[in-house]
Amino acid sequence: MIFPRAEFERRVWALQARMAKQSCEALLLTSPADVFYVTGFLTRFWESPARPWFVIVPAEGAPVAVIPSIGQALMSQTWVEDICCWDAPDPVDDGVSLLSETLREVTAGTVGVPMGLETSLRMPLADYHRLADAGLAFVDATDIVQRVREIKSEAEIATIRATCAIADQAFDQVTEIIMKNPYLDQVFRRFQATLLAEGADWVAYTAGGAGQGGYGDVIAPATSARLKDGDVVMLDTGAVKDGYFCDFDRNYAIGTPSDRTRTAHAALYAATDHALAEIRPGMRASDVHALLASALAERGETPGAGRLGHGLGIALTEWPSFTPKDQTLLRENMVLTLEPSVVISPGRILVHEENIVLREAGAELLSTRAPAEMPEVRL
Amino acid sequence: MIFPRAEFERRVWALQARMAKQSCEALLLTSPADVFYVTGFLTRFWESPARPWFVIVPAEGAPVAVIPSIGQALMSQTWVEDICCWDAPDPVDDGVSLLSETLREVTAGTVGVPMGLETSLRMPLADYHRLADAGLAFVDATDIVQRVREIKSEAEIATIRATCAIADQAFDQVTEIIMKNPYLDQVFRRFQATLLAEGADWVAYTAGGAGQGGYGDVIAPATSARLKDGDVVMLDTGAVKDGYFCDFDRNYAIGTPSDRTRTAHAALYAATDHALAEIRPGMRASDVHALLASALAERGETPGAGRLGHGLGIALTEWPSFTPKDQTLLRENMVLTLEPSVVISPGRILVHEENIVLREAGAELLSTRAPAEMPEVRL
Repeated sequence: MIFPRAEFERRVWALQARMAKQSCEALLLTSPADVFYVTGFLTRFWESPARPWFVIVPAEGAPVAVIPSIGQALMSQTWVEDICCWDAPDPVDDGVSLLSETLREVTAGTVGVPMGLETSLRMPLADYHRLADAGLAFVDATDIVQRVREIKSEAEIATIRATCAIADQAFDQVTEIIMKNPYLDQVFRRFQATLLAEGADWVAYTAGGAGQGGYGDVIAPATSARLKDGDVVMLDTGAVKDGYFCDFDRNYAIGTPSDRTRTAHAALYAATDHALAEIRPGMRASDVHALLASALAERGETPGAGRLGHGLGIALTEWPSFTPKDQTLLRENMVLTLEPSVVISPGRILVHEENIVLREAGAELLSTRAPAEMPEVRL
Repeated sequence: MIFPRAEFERRVWALQARMAKQSCEALLLTSPADVFYVTGFLTRFWESPARPWFVIVPAEGAPVAVIPSIGQALMSQTWVEDICCWDAPDPVDDGVSLLSETLREVTAGTVGVPMGLETSLRMPLADYHRLADAGLAFVDATDIVQRVREIKSEAEIATIRATCAIADQAFDQVTEIIMKNPYLDQVFRRFQATLLAEGADWVAYTAGGAGQGGYGDVIAPATSARLKDGDVVMLDTGAVKDGYFCDFDRNYAIGTPSDRTRTAHAALYAATDHALAEIRPGMRASDVHALLASALAERGETPGAGRLGHGLGIALTEWPSFTPKDQTLLRENMVLTLEPSVVISPGRILVHEENIVLREAGAELLSTRAPAEMPEVRL
């Protein structure tokens, strides 16, 4: 177990307090992050889409796991004692009867399921319909789960900080990695291996880009192109240690960056500084978007598409999103990313990202602040 | 693009032929594997749960992508030309209106969505309900998608073979990895780094176990325990190259294995040999379970819980499952794993796994056959 039992008890109590207020008598959780959050059950086996996994949070008491028997041994190592198993995958009844019976033992009332933004139900839709047809009443529990999960305990913050430190150390070696083998796909591979060598348990996410003065997008796998003078290389990673993610990127100039690239990078850096100085509990997510966007606008820059940062923790990205529309209230001990981007030229962007925990007094960095100027790599 | 346009056209035509038979006028696909299958859109960005992604396969013609704008550049590099984007995540309307309009342009009839075994809908449930409330009629399209995806083209088979070869080369180095640093978590890290060095684009899955004579389960993350004489170490990996997975394991004995462990391993090996010799198109998935289970029973061994193999390709695990209940018809050019397990003693198992493609004449190995005796590592 990564955390003591008390950590999980506190989480479940916090969920139950919100459930009571919303007349939700049980929670049904199916996603890797939600299951890990309440039980401590950590596995990469979620990569297999074959089997659903269910955890029920009752109105009172500890969670109940209704899971494929292949997970029994591992779930038994968590604080969960009530574990019901079936032999999955079962084409006739893949845990639905067992889940239905177990839910009925826990409640005759409504069952909360996260149904809103940034959620999905990780079970076959036909099986969910079967539960509903059998008379179980479901309500949306997105708010219950998100308002609890988004506030991190000190134990969680320390774990995310440790993951960020691993990425810091790996980013420090990227100049050398590029010089040794300046092909983007080889850089991606070596960067991932370096994260592992520095202590990551696994590397759930690596993306990036390379292009003259900037890159086309930030989610593409690497090409085998040789890097060349004038390119900016960006690496972005979600490494995982003890189930907790980091999520930040770094930019590297091949040779001397152009004036346009320097100016854009300086604007990103200044916008991040501005948000680091100004962000406070009590703001809305949209206010942070405004902080970053206005700082970029003052320097004549246009932000790229999409959000300019988001939550972080047991998933690579969590709510809220720094967009003009997101009205989520920022509260103490949220872990967040600041991720401004600017359009360098049509179809070409630069992105900068840091990880922070929001304290009463403001931002506390979890990633080591990027250098003010991009490192220049001589090939 | 990993494959030429013709590969994707064939896939879409095959889906459309089945759609026509079942009066399904459009398919709505939301999972990473389904989207990759019809478009070639390959990214690790699925790791972020924040945004839904939609691909529509109309009754005729090419797919239509309805996706977050952050994916526009990458989707534009695929064969898909009709790409509609919105600025996600949007707490008010996260692509639902755009998707609804686009579906209505394509069909006034029923929309197929995979709802059955081994599927899940990767979008907020509330948004799906909104689509249904707006008058869109959904039907289950599991069979349409699975009967097409489960038969691999020669291009796909070659790609899976290449991924298996990477894992083969990494497994060959495990004895050395263990000797250098005999702690299970360090072995996991070095094994993943070795897969990357051998050419994997990323390592989506690594699991394994270690214990005296066998291990407790096969899905746990590594502990930091020092390996010791009498342990059996198992490593199982789903490495990824060009979007295609391998999925097989290897066992290593620390010191000299006990007679019980040797006997159990020999039974697993013989059962696999038996299935390799006997598996044919025209059998049912349940027949392969019987082949493996009977070969184990003949040697007095009890199989572990769960299935004894499964499909493989663009996900770590695909249907069918080698269980007594799965009646899926085996057909030529399915890629499959043979994965018998035995119970060594209560709570302790051994698992063996190979990857094959099923040809008209029988099994063709994609992984290099494991050695008949476990390699013995001297610490």
